[in-house]
Amino acid sequence: MRVLILNGPNLGRLGSREPDVYGAQNFVSLTKFCVDQAASHGYSAEVRQTNDEAELISWLYEAVDSRTPVILNPAAFTHYSYALRDACAQVSGSGLPLVEVHLTNPASREAFRHNSVISGVATGTIAGFGFHSYRLAISSLPVEPETDDRR
Amino acid sequence: MRVLILNGPNLGRLGSREPDVYGAQNFVSLTKFCVDQAASHGYSAEVRQTNDEAELISWLYEAVDSRTPVILNPAAFTHYSYALRDACAQVSGSGLPLVEVHLTNPASREAFRHNSVISGVATGTIAGFGFHSYRLAISSLPVEPETDDRR
Amino acid sequence: MRVLILNGPNLGRLGSREPDVYGAQNFVSLTKFCVDQAASHGYSAEVRQTNDEAELISWLYEAVDSRTPVILNPAAFTHYSYALRDACAQVSGSGLPLVEVHLTNPASREAFRHNSVISGVATGTIAGFGFHSYRLAISSLPVEPETDDRR
Amino acid sequence: MRVLILNGPNLGRLGSREPDVYGAQNFVSLTKFCVDQAASHGYSAEVRQTNDEAELISWLYEAVDSRTPVILNPAAFTHYSYALRDACAQVSGSGLPLVEVHLTNPASREAFRHNSVISGVATGTIAGFGFHSYRLAISSLPVEPETDDRR
Amino acid sequence: MRVLILNGPNLGRLGSREPDVYGAQNFVSLTKFCVDQAASHGYSAEVRQTNDEAELISWLYEAVDSRTPVILNPAAFTHYSYALRDACAQVSGSGLPLVEVHLTNPASREAFRHNSVISGVATGTIAGFGFHSYRLAISSLPVEPETDDRR
Amino acid sequence: MRVLILNGPNLGRLGSREPDVYGAQNFVSLTKFCVDQAASHGYSAEVRQTNDEAELISWLYEAVDSRTPVILNPAAFTHYSYALRDACAQVSGSGLPLVEVHLTNPASREAFRHNSVISGVATGTIAGFGFHSYRLAISSLPVEPETDDRR
Amino acid sequence: MRVLILNGPNLGRLGSREPDVYGAQNFVSLTKFCVDQAASHGYSAEVRQTNDEAELISWLYEAVDSRTPVILNPAAFTHYSYALRDACAQVSGSGLPLVEVHLTNPASREAFRHNSVISGVATGTIAGFGFHSYRLAISSLPVEPETDDRR
Amino acid sequence: MRVLILNGPNLGRLGSREPDVYGAQNFVSLTKFCVDQAASHGYSAEVRQTNDEAELISWLYEAVDSRTPVILNPAAFTHYSYALRDACAQVSGSGLPLVEVHLTNPASREAFRHNSVISGVATGTIAGFGFHSYRLAISSLPVEPETDDRR
Amino acid sequence: MRVLILNGPNLGRLGSREPDVYGAQNFVSLTKFCVDQAASHGYSAEVRQTNDEAELISWLYEAVDSRTPVILNPAAFTHYSYALRDACAQVSGSGLPLVEVHLTNPASREAFRHNSVISGVATGTIAGFGFHSYRLAISSLPVEPETDDRR
Amino acid sequence: MRVLILNGPNLGRLGSREPDVYGAQNFVSLTKFCVDQAASHGYSAEVRQTNDEAELISWLYEAVDSRTPVILNPAAFTHYSYALRDACAQVSGSGLPLVEVHLTNPASREAFRHNSVISGVATGTIAGFGFHSYRLAISSLPVEPETDDRR
Amino acid sequence: MRVLILNGPNLGRLGSREPDVYGAQNFVSLTKFCVDQAASHGYSAEVRQTNDEAELISWLYEAVDSRTPVILNPAAFTHYSYALRDACAQVSGSGLPLVEVHLTNPASREAFRHNSVISGVATGTIAGFGFHSYRLAISSLPVEPETDDRR
Amino acid sequence: MRVLILNGPNLGRLGSREPDVYGAQNFVSLTKFCVDQAASHGYSAEVRQTNDEAELISWLYEAVDSRTPVILNPAAFTHYSYALRDACAQVSGSGLPLVEVHLTNPASREAFRHNSVISGVATGTIAGFGFHSYRLAISSLPVEPETDDRR
Repeated sequence: MRVLILNGPNLGRLGSREPDVYGAQNFVSLTKFCVDQAASHGYSAEVRQTNDEAELISWLYEAVDSRTPVILNPAAFTHYSYALRDACAQVSGSGLPLVEVHLTNPASREAFRHNSVISGVATGTIAGFGFHSYRLAISSLPVEPETDDRR
Repeated sequence: MRVLILNGPNLGRLGSREPDVYGAQNFVSLTKFCVDQAASHGYSAEVRQTNDEAELISWLYEAVDSRTPVILNPAAFTHYSYALRDACAQVSGSGLPLVEVHLTNPASREAFRHNSVISGVATGTIAGFGFHSYRLAISSLPVEPETDDRR
Repeated sequence: MRVLILNGPNLGRLGSREPDVYGAQNFVSLTKFCVDQAASHGYSAEVRQTNDEAELISWLYEAVDSRTPVILNPAAFTHYSYALRDACAQVSGSGLPLVEVHLTNPASREAFRHNSVISGVATGTIAGFGFHSYRLAISSLPVEPETDDRR
Repeated sequence: MRVLILNGPNLGRLGSREPDVYGAQNFVSLTKFCVDQAASHGYSAEVRQTNDEAELISWLYEAVDSRTPVILNPAAFTHYSYALRDACAQVSGSGLPLVEVHLTNPASREAFRHNSVISGVATGTIAGFGFHSYRLAISSLPVEPETDDRR
Repeated sequence: MRVLILNGPNLGRLGSREPDVYGAQNFVSLTKFCVDQAASHGYSAEVRQTNDEAELISWLYEAVDSRTPVILNPAAFTHYSYALRDACAQVSGSGLPLVEVHLTNPASREAFRHNSVISGVATGTIAGFGFHSYRLAISSLPVEPETDDRR
Repeated sequence: MRVLILNGPNLGRLGSREPDVYGAQNFVSLTKFCVDQAASHGYSAEVRQTNDEAELISWLYEAVDSRTPVILNPAAFTHYSYALRDACAQVSGSGLPLVEVHLTNPASREAFRHNSVISGVATGTIAGFGFHSYRLAISSLPVEPETDDRR
Repeated sequence: MRVLILNGPNLGRLGSREPDVYGAQNFVSLTKFCVDQAASHGYSAEVRQTNDEAELISWLYEAVDSRTPVILNPAAFTHYSYALRDACAQVSGSGLPLVEVHLTNPASREAFRHNSVISGVATGTIAGFGFHSYRLAISSLPVEPETDDRR
Repeated sequence: MRVLILNGPNLGRLGSREPDVYGAQNFVSLTKFCVDQAASHGYSAEVRQTNDEAELISWLYEAVDSRTPVILNPAAFTHYSYALRDACAQVSGSGLPLVEVHLTNPASREAFRHNSVISGVATGTIAGFGFHSYRLAISSLPVEPETDDRR
Repeated sequence: MRVLILNGPNLGRLGSREPDVYGAQNFVSLTKFCVDQAASHGYSAEVRQTNDEAELISWLYEAVDSRTPVILNPAAFTHYSYALRDACAQVSGSGLPLVEVHLTNPASREAFRHNSVISGVATGTIAGFGFHSYRLAISSLPVEPETDDRR
Repeated sequence: MRVLILNGPNLGRLGSREPDVYGAQNFVSLTKFCVDQAASHGYSAEVRQTNDEAELISWLYEAVDSRTPVILNPAAFTHYSYALRDACAQVSGSGLPLVEVHLTNPASREAFRHNSVISGVATGTIAGFGFHSYRLAISSLPVEPETDDRR
Repeated sequence: MRVLILNGPNLGRLGSREPDVYGAQNFVSLTKFCVDQAASHGYSAEVRQTNDEAELISWLYEAVDSRTPVILNPAAFTHYSYALRDACAQVSGSGLPLVEVHLTNPASREAFRHNSVISGVATGTIAGFGFHSYRLAISSLPVEPETDDRR
Repeated sequence: MRVLILNGPNLGRLGSREPDVYGAQNFVSLTKFCVDQAASHGYSAEVRQTNDEAELISWLYEAVDSRTPVILNPAAFTHYSYALRDACAQVSGSGLPLVEVHLTNPASREAFRHNSVISGVATGTIAGFGFHSYRLAISSLPVEPETDDRR
């Protein structure tokens, strides 16, 4: 099974910004981490990043059309992109998981980061666990959707 | 290793409210689900529930004093209990994980549920995955905290 | 038939606060008034008061489990206790009457008293009639719920 | 004793709007229900309805001048008619009961219905009991005003 | 087929206000324009104007009772008349078109004109086209309602 | 020269409300006071009162059409009647004086009275001088408008 | 004469989202509908859609430079794209029609959809008529702009 | 009898700002106008101006101590000087007239000018009549305070 | 004379939280400090702490009934407990001192700490002096209440 | 040791305003009270008052330069003088005590008095104890600053 | 050519506050820096500072009367002094440059510093460049105003 | 040394919009003006413009990676693009100058232009000087960064 792991603006710069802080933990590391984690859950992960709202939206369409679950870190789009929200609603509205993830905890940062226009149409939200936010999101995906009735 | 899984007001009524909807999925089921999940992660889970703000706070002290990680579903206290917030800050402030969980996605419910006074002092937040919100929270706990450097 | 008449914080101090104003009209008087009024409507009233949010919530559970209508004066909890709101929603959500009463008219008092977080999940609200708010609430209870179709 | 039962805009259309829902329960039914209930309380009820703010105000003057208690369903005027408020204040300010009633519970409807500009000058408010809101209001009226000291 | 074209406060003064600006384009012109446009769409238009909230509401009842579509320019009532809103909801709620029109574009005028309490219960809104707002509204009416499935 | 002195809702009840306070100072007194004051300024005053928004608006049209200055006490309409505002704008927009008066000082009363939707289109505002607010308004009218250049 | 009919984010997914609801009424249908309607009004319509804010802006420039009227459905950009607003202002500011259309009535949807940053610079707005919103917009365009003086 | 006519910041620049507009109507003209008007009402006016909040406050003390009525144009202090408000409250609180005047109508200017922190403690307010605002204020002063009972 | 020194949620954890910062200055130290300070002012202090809103309220009743002054650090309850406020109002309303204290200066901390629902019914407030806030509160108590007329 | 006791606008009028209420308790009394209290704490107090923002600021500089603790009653400046705030920040920022005092409890007065722009940069705040607010402030000053480690 | 470089409250304390940080960079340094920079641009700079709102206003008048450009650092007055704003409007309104400068970037400081009541009437604003903010402001002044047409 | 001068949406249309107003002063003129000004300061300027948020972000990365100072006119992105903000923070966070410029003064335009989400992470802001805003920004760049210690 495939999963799309989509990343919004500025996330491609992970690691290059403050190399002494992040070390090898740049976007390449994140990609590898996600691919590995997904593999261990029986998923083939495709990790992408873009600063382009329209491209991010098109990837969400691809998910809908190919019936692929989505893990989305909307980054700064979280706070204003209603266009992204409407695209996300197509994913979750069609019964596919659309998991919103954040590396950090927006609630403990600037006030403008406390509001998400995406959460209202997400299946669920995971924030604050660094790279592990992605691992948890992967692990939230159904193994066999039809037989998963614990929720 | 031990983990405290603490639940706020009204969560003890899971299942009794709408039995035709939730079936066996009452609070006893949740407890069992959590204990099992924790065990499979090498954790011994103690699952508690209370409608009493003061009791919930005292459990957080117990966590601090015994150096036990906490998974907390603050339920309706999420939206107003600054007393609980101050107690949570002691947990996360002392370097222990304090993971906020929600069964549902508050962002897609009534407006008053969109604000959390707890998130700002939580290590991380997981919302919207039903019982699985707890499983993911358990799985977010460090296996060997000292050597976990991926974040 | 039984009815639970539940009173929130500080209502137990009725009369003791300003004895020259309230005279014999303390909480004992209110209790007797309610029991008498209920009796004349064929109801056996149990009048309780607590300053404890958790205890008040537990009484609401008792009402749900025993299929007993509730008359609730949430007092100051009216303005912030979402935990109480969620418990009230269980009462009204299960088809039982949950009548919110107030001795005074909160709308003619301080601004913070103008907002009720309870009203949205109450069957109905009665405010401003002193002890008579309770009498009216009792008299709002169905005599034979199944055959009452005037609403 | 006489009581004026005054109804604001659109209440005359009760029943005609959704006849399959309300059946015989149109405004004529409400009028009959009120007259009957009032009679059983020793009151002669005059039930009126208008969509005209000025006419409603003039009826409140009539109440003041004839020393008649008022039961008022301000309907949509509830949310903006300060002119009506000033007229209501003359009723309650002169010592006459001015009971605000609502068929439904505005607090569980659209946000704009949560605010009442009338409540602050009403003797009391009763909302959410359908036709019975009127019955309770009638039953809130004093039998012998001078000797009623339970409040 | 008939259509009611209803106009709120001050619209009767069109043209008389600033005759050098509006020329022959007063309310009589608007009426004629509407009647002509309606005729060319197979509708018999009745154009009315009132400054009286109650009268405007009564015309909306007439529309409901005679199953007549409505084109409404609520003028200044747009911004506060919840009584009008409740009457409009009867029109649109009964399946009849209730088209809100404005001569000018309220969004480019004073801030208080940016909010409409009517739009939420209108079938649709047309603003900013001068007299043509009415023509477009007329042309929005179904020719053969039962067979119009393009929406 | 003529002047229209127009009074909004509830002002006709002056004096009847609290006769021990106002004595002979009812609306008849106010009318006489205004007529006398106007006469001493060479004006023939016509003092009217209505609770009807539409009637008040029609009087403003009369003023525009007969080129008569207006003194207006909008009473409670002050706070919400945008329909009245649009009519007032016709008066002041046509170069005629439209003086807003208030008996009391709204700024020292309830918060909802602090906002006037009329002031923005009034020539000027006079508030807080009791009957004398009207006298001052009368005395603000130009003796010979064309030659008054002190402003 | 040419007209540009521009559509913002997610509108290209019309029909594919909920095929059982929309049937053949996808974006291809909308395009054909618009082209046909335009033709019957003597206009040659070019219907485009993009999720890309910058592309949408460039199309508006094209309209300005070629003196072509614009019908714009800004979709989710309606609520935040001030960049789009500034481009729209160039269209309407240069005397060309810029008609804002919406398939649905945003005023009856989520609160965040009630605000349009585009309307203030649009010639006019048409919302709530489904595909017909476009037809009405087309029909709002001047036949012979220079000689159209009815507004 | 004496009256203090006090003017706040920037009013001394009347006329010098836009001489082609105001002509001889500078602050000297205003002073003369006030002195003349006051004289014709039997008052000896002292007209002062300052940009200094503290000096303005000291003049208000002088008024209290000498039992002199005050006419005050607080200019920009209107919108923020709570220190001035507290001083004004001493004047009106001691039973002396404190009339707030404005040359223009602040309600038709920028939003920040719509709020007055002074009005709540003024005897009355007169705005929008140019120099005549002062004349009206003078004419609002009691001739024989003890015998003036028309209010 | 006795004084009740009541402490709200989390204050019992003083010192245990950050022992390297507070040293011996834990809640036991605070208790001893208060008892000593009170003794030196001729007061016998009883220092209590609870995380339980209901218990804190009951202690306030005890104070009213035994005519004992209260020093209260409401901690996080400061910001939302209207139940506590109503209980405090009984203390101050009965003429007993109710002094609100805070160790730190809430005004220089997070925004949610800037609002106190308690201050409005406190005799006075002392904040920002660490342990000394309590000493000052003790020293604010009347030595001989009846003869203290300096205020 | 010296202490500066600085008082903002209108405080010099203490006693003269309502002599029957305050008797000898005017500003002279307050000055004497402060000097005496300070003396008994080993401090030489200099009590000053001004209505002038700039003078008050200069006194704060004097405190910084002479290393003198400050007790400040900012009076109405409390609510808007950011200039004063910036000067206060120099005092507290340089390690000197800057104690904000109020005679009354602003939290129980008008809404505009609930906000202090000074508190955020004050060492501590004492409000509501009349003259005793100053005594408590004096008594908050360190006896031997270097050795005071109880906070 | 002359330029007035005016500085608001607390700027005179530059350097004395935190001498180890600012070193020789006190207000004298700033003055010299400005005079030198101005000289190199052919301007004779007069650098002044005051904590007095009225004095600052008088300097602005001096600028208007002598046709001198102004560079103004309003410091804390930026956030509330509408009196200063009205004086600034005279400068910019008379066609003279009025450049608002700030040493730091208010947008990255406390929330109350994000609002400027001055900017709306300034020619331009320069913030965040330390002393260089002044240099840039000087360099923004026209060399030969009449012939400068690049803007 | 190189400097990137980046321009956001719609700035490429300078001059073409209102040619009679701007004349030759289109974006080509601005580019030339900037290149010339930069050259005279020893900088080689690269002037770019885009309507594409993602492209603008990529240019900011280029600046970070090549250690090039940035002058940014974010145009309408100023008011909502948090994605741009996060990219800007990388520039200023890495110690490079990021100067925000605006041709006009947003504070004197529409209310939505008063808020900048960019300023908080800019080194400094320059607004209102037309083309000269860019010149001043260029001149704000350090000649020899290491030795510039005047700030």
